[in-house]
Amino acid sequence: MTEDSFFQWLFQQLPTAGKDVVIPPGDDCAAIRWREDKLLLIAVDQVVGGRHYVAKGPDATPPALAGRKLVARNVSDIAAIGGTPLFCLLAGAFPKSCTETWLKEFYGGIVDAVGAFQLQMLGGDLASSNGDEVASLTILGEVAANEVITRSGARAGDALFATGAFGNSFVSGHHLHFNPRHAEGRWLAQQHLASAMMDVSDGLLLDLSRICKMSQCGARIDLNAIPCRDAGTSIDQACSEGEDFELIFAVPSDKVAALQQRWPFANTPLTRLGTFDGSGLLRDQQGNSLVARGWDHLSPPSAGGN
Amino acid sequence: MTEDSFFQWLFQQLPTAGKDVVIPPGDDCAAIRWREDKLLLIAVDQVVGGRHYVAKGPDATPPALAGRKLVARNVSDIAAIGGTPLFCLLAGAFPKSCTETWLKEFYGGIVDAVGAFQLQMLGGDLASSNGDEVASLTILGEVAANEVITRSGARAGDALFATGAFGNSFVSGHHLHFNPRHAEGRWLAQQHLASAMMDVSDGLLLDLSRICKMSQCGARIDLNAIPCRDAGTSIDQACSEGEDFELIFAVPSDKVAALQQRWPFANTPLTRLGTFDGSGLLRDQQGNSLVARGWDHLSPPSAGGN
Repeated sequence: MTEDSFFQWLFQQLPTAGKDVVIPPGDDCAAIRWREDKLLLIAVDQVVGGRHYVAKGPDATPPALAGRKLVARNVSDIAAIGGTPLFCLLAGAFPKSCTETWLKEFYGGIVDAVGAFQLQMLGGDLASSNGDEVASLTILGEVAANEVITRSGARAGDALFATGAFGNSFVSGHHLHFNPRHAEGRWLAQQHLASAMMDVSDGLLLDLSRICKMSQCGARIDLNAIPCRDAGTSIDQACSEGEDFELIFAVPSDKVAALQQRWPFANTPLTRLGTFDGSGLLRDQQGNSLVARGWDHLSPPSAGGN
Repeated sequence: MTEDSFFQWLFQQLPTAGKDVVIPPGDDCAAIRWREDKLLLIAVDQVVGGRHYVAKGPDATPPALAGRKLVARNVSDIAAIGGTPLFCLLAGAFPKSCTETWLKEFYGGIVDAVGAFQLQMLGGDLASSNGDEVASLTILGEVAANEVITRSGARAGDALFATGAFGNSFVSGHHLHFNPRHAEGRWLAQQHLASAMMDVSDGLLLDLSRICKMSQCGARIDLNAIPCRDAGTSIDQACSEGEDFELIFAVPSDKVAALQQRWPFANTPLTRLGTFDGSGLLRDQQGNSLVARGWDHLSPPSAGGN
């Protein structure tokens, strides 16, 4: 069972979303009607010691950076739908072996990130556990109803674009220091340039396959066009490792020129990776089928972290 | 360091709540402005295996009941402020030793409770961990701005009331089967009968001390008036064990008669426990100071669960 199939099993049993739910579960955020023309966006994401960061030993992640990562990956979920992050809530379960110093540094990293991303913290819960440090953050944001960009709007013929670079996130430290693309996501939403969007956390091809599934289309991707993080990163790593927290998005063909001319983020690479099509498949530039490999949360690899 | 002092340390470092935040952290829920006269209520709470339920061995809690508890304790937080629960999000981190059967039963209990409490599930996240099963639920609800009942409204002279009975929750199984008092909380809010309210999860005296602190007052409580769960439950247990998920609330003296006459919940005992005063202390009927013992999440007792 994969995480996707587990949540499919779970949400099938739940009542259909009611009238106030504008974006049901299955996207980067859910959305409910808020006020005037605004939607309230909501998502939850976690970091677990030993999995999303190194918890122990000489290579242990500084706890403040682990805390920062928790906030930043949630901001990335709001970015992925074109929204502005506003509020958050925090739940943590920590073993008794956690020192007060560790906890204060971890929470200090969260506090700093909450300030840096201009969030307001609304509450929290703290529990004891045995085992790994588990912290979850619920994030809330807003977006105008006519600006929101979901995973389900890609159409055959749309171009596939990505921000930034991919692969080798864990070893390079990118997963701790990345800047979530919320300015880029907001700009794409305001400019009405993207028909579908998500952030890449579980792997470029796996997350692309999710856009394709939600949009009922396929995509042809030029593997050689994928920007790799550094010279030591293979295309294979860029395709599947995840933790990139870059945006991938669909752009209607008649808006591609406008996107490329107007893109205002000089420090954020913008790359065309391919084209959506009606095949329902992921294929490379030669037409070979690609396997949507990536990170599955129920069957994680034994090494590294995610 | 206690949980209260830890969160005090944490929230002191955070920016002061902005204009959209009507109830800042420190109450059972936070509240932000929603639409028309409504507030959106938000809280997060967790269950941890081995702590909030028995995870292993012959006395292991049926996983469906552990899942139900997670939802019910969050509904209780919405009840505690007079609100109606509406939406929830779920984050879970589970060890590989969790079988698919266990996970499906646990989530099945959550699904059933989500239906029973007429909630809508908006999303979730799932991660692997080593150690205890950790699940957190974020709950959202609504309340009219002129009906909300916070912890901070108690005044000297107000009567202290409680629903239900206290103590022995873990051994008796109450903590798994309790009905959160959301109908009672809503009624008190609509009738404008309570000046302050919260739910008792960490212990009657500890939670009462939190109302007193937020309301800048004290209380005198008649220990002999406290309804104990059963014949085997001592007043000491009723005062401190927690997990009762009953409401305690302050009632202005001129509304006490109306409360007692109109209380429409034949199956929910309503008991006057004492009177708020200006002392800043918790005292018993003889005027002896009481220690606000209860469950602290950073220094849990070694036995039982909470």
